[in-house]
Amino acid sequence: MNIQQIVKEKGLGLLFRQGTVGIEKESQRVHADGSIVTSEHPKAFGNRSYHPYIQTDFAESQLELITPPNKKIEDTLRWLSALHEVTLRTIDENEYIFPMSMPAGLPPEQEIRVAQLDNAADVAYREHLVASYGKAKQMVSGIHYNFQLDPKLVETLFNAQTDYKSAVDFQNNLYLKMAKNFLRYQWILLYLLSATPTVEANYFKDGSPLKPNQYVRSLRSSKYGYVNAPDIIVSFDSIEKYVETLEHWVNSGRLIAEKEFYSNVRLRGAKKAREFLYTGIQYLEFRLFDLNPFEAYGINLKDAKFIHHFILLMIWLDETADQDAVELGRARLGEVAFEDPHSETAYRDEGERIINQLIDMLKAIGAEQSAVEFAEEKLAQFSDPGQTLCARLVDAIEQAGGYQQLGAEIAKRNKVQAFERFYALSAFDNMELSTQALMFDAIQKGLNMEILDENDQFLRLQFGDHFEYVKNGNMTSHDSYISPLIMENKVVTKKVLAKAGFNVPQSLEFTSVEQAVASYPLFEGKAVVIKPKSTNFGLGISIFQQGVHDKADFAKAVEIAFREDKEVMVEDYLVGTEYRFFVLGNETLAVLLRVPANVVGDGVHTVAELVAAKNDHPLRGDGSRTPLKKIALGEIEQLQLKEQGLTVDSVPAKDQLVQLRANSNISTGGDSIDMTDEMHPSYKDLAVGITKAMGAAVCGVDLIIPDLKKPAEPNLSSWGVIEANFNPMMMMHIFPYSGKSRRLTLNVLGMLFPELV
Amino acid sequence: MNIQQIVKEKGLGLLFRQGTVGIEKESQRVHADGSIVTSEHPKAFGNRSYHPYIQTDFAESQLELITPPNKKIEDTLRWLSALHEVTLRTIDENEYIFPMSMPAGLPPEQEIRVAQLDNAADVAYREHLVASYGKAKQMVSGIHYNFQLDPKLVETLFNAQTDYKSAVDFQNNLYLKMAKNFLRYQWILLYLLSATPTVEANYFKDGSPLKPNQYVRSLRSSKYGYVNAPDIIVSFDSIEKYVETLEHWVNSGRLIAEKEFYSNVRLRGAKKAREFLYTGIQYLEFRLFDLNPFEAYGINLKDAKFIHHFILLMIWLDETADQDAVELGRARLGEVAFEDPHSETAYRDEGERIINQLIDMLKAIGAEQSAVEFAEEKLAQFSDPGQTLCARLVDAIEQAGGYQQLGAEIAKRNKVQAFERFYALSAFDNMELSTQALMFDAIQKGLNMEILDENDQFLRLQFGDHFEYVKNGNMTSHDSYISPLIMENKVVTKKVLAKAGFNVPQSLEFTSVEQAVASYPLFEGKAVVIKPKSTNFGLGISIFQQGVHDKADFAKAVEIAFREDKEVMVEDYLVGTEYRFFVLGNETLAVLLRVPANVVGDGVHTVAELVAAKNDHPLRGDGSRTPLKKIALGEIEQLQLKEQGLTVDSVPAKDQLVQLRANSNISTGGDSIDMTDEMHPSYKDLAVGITKAMGAAVCGVDLIIPDLKKPAEPNLSSWGVIEANFNPMMMMHIFPYSGKSRRLTLNVLGMLFPELV
Repeated sequence: MNIQQIVKEKGLGLLFRQGTVGIEKESQRVHADGSIVTSEHPKAFGNRSYHPYIQTDFAESQLELITPPNKKIEDTLRWLSALHEVTLRTIDENEYIFPMSMPAGLPPEQEIRVAQLDNAADVAYREHLVASYGKAKQMVSGIHYNFQLDPKLVETLFNAQTDYKSAVDFQNNLYLKMAKNFLRYQWILLYLLSATPTVEANYFKDGSPLKPNQYVRSLRSSKYGYVNAPDIIVSFDSIEKYVETLEHWVNSGRLIAEKEFYSNVRLRGAKKAREFLYTGIQYLEFRLFDLNPFEAYGINLKDAKFIHHFILLMIWLDETADQDAVELGRARLGEVAFEDPHSETAYRDEGERIINQLIDMLKAIGAEQSAVEFAEEKLAQFSDPGQTLCARLVDAIEQAGGYQQLGAEIAKRNKVQAFERFYALSAFDNMELSTQALMFDAIQKGLNMEILDENDQFLRLQFGDHFEYVKNGNMTSHDSYISPLIMENKVVTKKVLAKAGFNVPQSLEFTSVEQAVASYPLFEGKAVVIKPKSTNFGLGISIFQQGVHDKADFAKAVEIAFREDKEVMVEDYLVGTEYRFFVLGNETLAVLLRVPANVVGDGVHTVAELVAAKNDHPLRGDGSRTPLKKIALGEIEQLQLKEQGLTVDSVPAKDQLVQLRANSNISTGGDSIDMTDEMHPSYKDLAVGITKAMGAAVCGVDLIIPDLKKPAEPNLSSWGVIEANFNPMMMMHIFPYSGKSRRLTLNVLGMLFPELV
Repeated sequence: MNIQQIVKEKGLGLLFRQGTVGIEKESQRVHADGSIVTSEHPKAFGNRSYHPYIQTDFAESQLELITPPNKKIEDTLRWLSALHEVTLRTIDENEYIFPMSMPAGLPPEQEIRVAQLDNAADVAYREHLVASYGKAKQMVSGIHYNFQLDPKLVETLFNAQTDYKSAVDFQNNLYLKMAKNFLRYQWILLYLLSATPTVEANYFKDGSPLKPNQYVRSLRSSKYGYVNAPDIIVSFDSIEKYVETLEHWVNSGRLIAEKEFYSNVRLRGAKKAREFLYTGIQYLEFRLFDLNPFEAYGINLKDAKFIHHFILLMIWLDETADQDAVELGRARLGEVAFEDPHSETAYRDEGERIINQLIDMLKAIGAEQSAVEFAEEKLAQFSDPGQTLCARLVDAIEQAGGYQQLGAEIAKRNKVQAFERFYALSAFDNMELSTQALMFDAIQKGLNMEILDENDQFLRLQFGDHFEYVKNGNMTSHDSYISPLIMENKVVTKKVLAKAGFNVPQSLEFTSVEQAVASYPLFEGKAVVIKPKSTNFGLGISIFQQGVHDKADFAKAVEIAFREDKEVMVEDYLVGTEYRFFVLGNETLAVLLRVPANVVGDGVHTVAELVAAKNDHPLRGDGSRTPLKKIALGEIEQLQLKEQGLTVDSVPAKDQLVQLRANSNISTGGDSIDMTDEMHPSYKDLAVGITKAMGAAVCGVDLIIPDLKKPAEPNLSSWGVIEANFNPMMMMHIFPYSGKSRRLTLNVLGMLFPELV
């Protein structure tokens, strides 16, 4: 089976480089001092019986974060980042995630809580582990790297070879080659990536085997790690022998189940090994890797790619390790694991030879130049052991004054970092914030989530057999198609609302400036708003709050509106304050007051300076990567200033309110103030009724109300509806400028998956 | 009550000119010779118990077309046009609509069928009429003109006067003034607009009162028309007197009901006259008008506007007719009705005075210049009676050789005209054809229809209490919002369909030309289609049917696609023929083969000439005002010709098929061929399944099928789905280039109103 030759001849470099990677990462929840907590797995993560991403491993304190498999390894790392942000922002504010594999600050054995699972078999399994290995070893954490070759590659290779008649046989032997060569050369990855040089003495039952100030490359991969008894040997010679020997250990009672076989390579894709004979190995799980404490999520992208390439090399090589070679590899792993991290390894020549072959392979398959360069850096670490991760870690431990101290420091830094943009999921920051918030909640609650289209904010969520699609945070199957079409059209919206008996300001539509201006007598002296028929973000809107008294002003406003649309509306302007009601189903979940962009004078600073100061608020930014938008100082704002007799260089008096905009949209720098609890319930009921008239499940209703404390009355002087919006914004309610936060994305999930709540 | 003065002082011209007009028009269904049919009212119009627009009046043959009230009189005329087109295209192909008020070719009295209504009271009423007036008079048809002042005008006038304390009193007296002055001066409108100069002798029970060759101005408004006994006098002096005298005639048994009082002005807006005392007269019904036989729909816009202005004049005048003046007006009407149409009227001075006042009024209220000019034309008809409608009609009758002959000729011409653009509703031709088709069906079946927004193709349909909205012909509440969002995104569509187990061609997405070109090796030699991620109308699509073999060709195609979108897809090209399946609910209602724009050579004409000839087809046009589109000869078509070694000036051989396009969209000149009955049912089931997977109620599914006769198999070589479209086109199925028509708009109505079917 000469893979190398086929890939070269057929030009399969691209296909060979492709593959699917999923990562599982264990880690301990700890106190600020790095010691392990005894608190429960947070209830906010829902039930562990179904959570696909956030689980507990052996102990109640031991988080297991599981990414879905991804074709792009970048996506796997993005998921890992997202899972960490969700976890760090959900656990108790005094808890942290320990960044190292070996546990620090272990409580007395009896205080270590085994994970409180529902499933009796899972509990029994953990009890068996305690009896066989003790609790301390179970607290060791690591990264499991799951890898699947592109099925098209496997098919193409099978078709190009003649050794195997059966595709299943071919696939099994291909993955076994990968497994065996990996077991043979795994010590190389250990040398380059290990990060468990020490642990506290109480980890060991019979006292530490390490001398004072002795560091090793990997305690976790040594015999002091969490490994099977040395006589438990399972053959990788063929799939048949693998099944036979593994079943032997289970049948003889030495292993409680197949999954107790802790090889650094596990064959995956079937519930029982015997199934591989018929269905084939689907992917491999590589369990060698220590957490990289210098990385917030335990691994970085370059190393993850390097591992991917190393795994590919295992089938690229002409040789295939036999069982003896596998045992040799295991022995070498044990030796290297106990070497001093700053010393040269005993097997430097072999390591350099293999990495050189890796570099040759990368060039042959057309890998990116950066991958070649990174492999060359790794190669150099054989002659310069001080550059290995483990050696650098030892230096850092020394500097920090101890293993636990360093871990605690990093853990606290990581948590601060996870809160830096607390409203975002950093790894998915190319998507809309509202979708990021929904994804946060879906991950937290344990819904299966697939991003169908990132640019389009299109998600597929699943719980059991029930699936739902969501676009832009709240566009779902619960709304009828006609309802956004109605809301998209202001004229139709008004007709529908008026017919349903809601207070709607009267308006007239025009298709030309001339036509509108000819109707000026109809509006003279009346408070009116002039706006494009269908546009968003407050563009082209003029408001004559005190009534329009000059035909030229009116004409100018009409002209501005016509720049945005072919049809323009002139509408009664309602006296009162505009509130946005966010309605979902039968309930108004949030009420927001949007105040037009403004600053308050202090008698010292200019308008421009006041704006700059206000724009420093942590929620303010471009308005797409932040919940609120910085106030601009463009043409419209300067016009607004002029109306108040001001310029950007004026110094407003102390407490003088300076309006920068007439419209109150958040997208033009407005302030958002939650008023949900202040609003009289009668208006909340009206907003629900308006939503029903629109046929909508989710709706943003804009009402003008002069007095939010007085109950609604059936006339336009008590209240009026000016707009109903589909796909209403959520971020301004979730993260208002002031007032209480309303986590609307959770309500959207509750609507879609009532069975989850 | 000096209306004139208030309107002038307050500058209310615009408000005064506004008002609501609805028209009812009776007419007889006739044979080709103009004689009245004895067939039933067509079943296609549904049940008369609810039809809001197409009813029968007295006789089964007597159509009554009723427009809804409209604020713009133009809309009322458009409705009248639409009602006629629906009626003319629905009645038996050998039946016509008689254009004149007086019936011709009356059958013997016993053969005249009274309308077969469900309601017993309605039938009893008609039996009473037969007994009181005989059947012949009941066959006379006319136009009833319903007019309501703008309620805002009434309110403003009320506020500006001091004579009345109660708004209801004011409103009643305002409309009574209008009614009384109209009754006083109605003879003027008769002089100008009457059109019933003669009738056949058998119309009269006791022989014709007309001498041979005698014509009069209006038989219909004379005592030989359908009028109450002369002694039935109802007072218009006050609303109280009106109620009192009308109730007297009913209580005494001289009238069977209030509605038997056939005044040329009826007070409207209440079921019983007594209600007016409390609620006020809402509008007036003017019943004076003969059908204008020269107009396809019995009245033209100019006359309709003139009538509107004349009615306004009735309240503009300082004077208010008293009961004596009303009786004088009635007497004068009778006299003028019996004048010779070519002679000067006895009351010319009064007529000219009133029309001059009308002209003054029009100028004072700022009416359009054309209205003033039209009034001046009417004024001139007092000195030139030969220009009156009736005189011109007499001339035409003489020329045609008889009353019935002329009527039959016009009726046949009108029917031909109604079929000229048989796929459209002419008066709503600014809207989409599919919406016009839906409106046609809604009118035919008797759904209440309101156009919420013409530009947006937004309709509201209602039947009983049940209402539905429709946009663009088939976007309704039956589709879930997420479903068009899925279909709008081809990538998401594919993921959803693939997950649901449908055969989907594989594809890759790219965001730059470079990225796509770098992946060229993945596609080399394969048949692929390159297209923008989300665009319509086939723009930017290239197809390599024979496989792509040249990197430069590939790069060029990618570049063209990127001109239309920021993302481009390269997709497996399926071998087979593309069919469009139109699915509604659980059924594939139509299957269409779309053949790319093409011509077939004849060995004589050039490609350009063949295209021009093919473009003459009645269904071809711009593709928006016609069901099919003319073939263009632009850049893309010329490139397509080049691929076949042709130019527009080539002369293709006889029977040579010349492709003008690679894509088969109708919108780029393709042919549409109905294949519904030819398609194997297994594919129709698949299309329904795909529609369900999209969560859609209405969906256009594009399948590629190599053999439409063979049952579908579960692999891509048997069939593949390439697109699912929301808001799928309907016109190409309703009016295919060849094959059977599928009236999908009826199915849409059936989906929305299952209770109607």
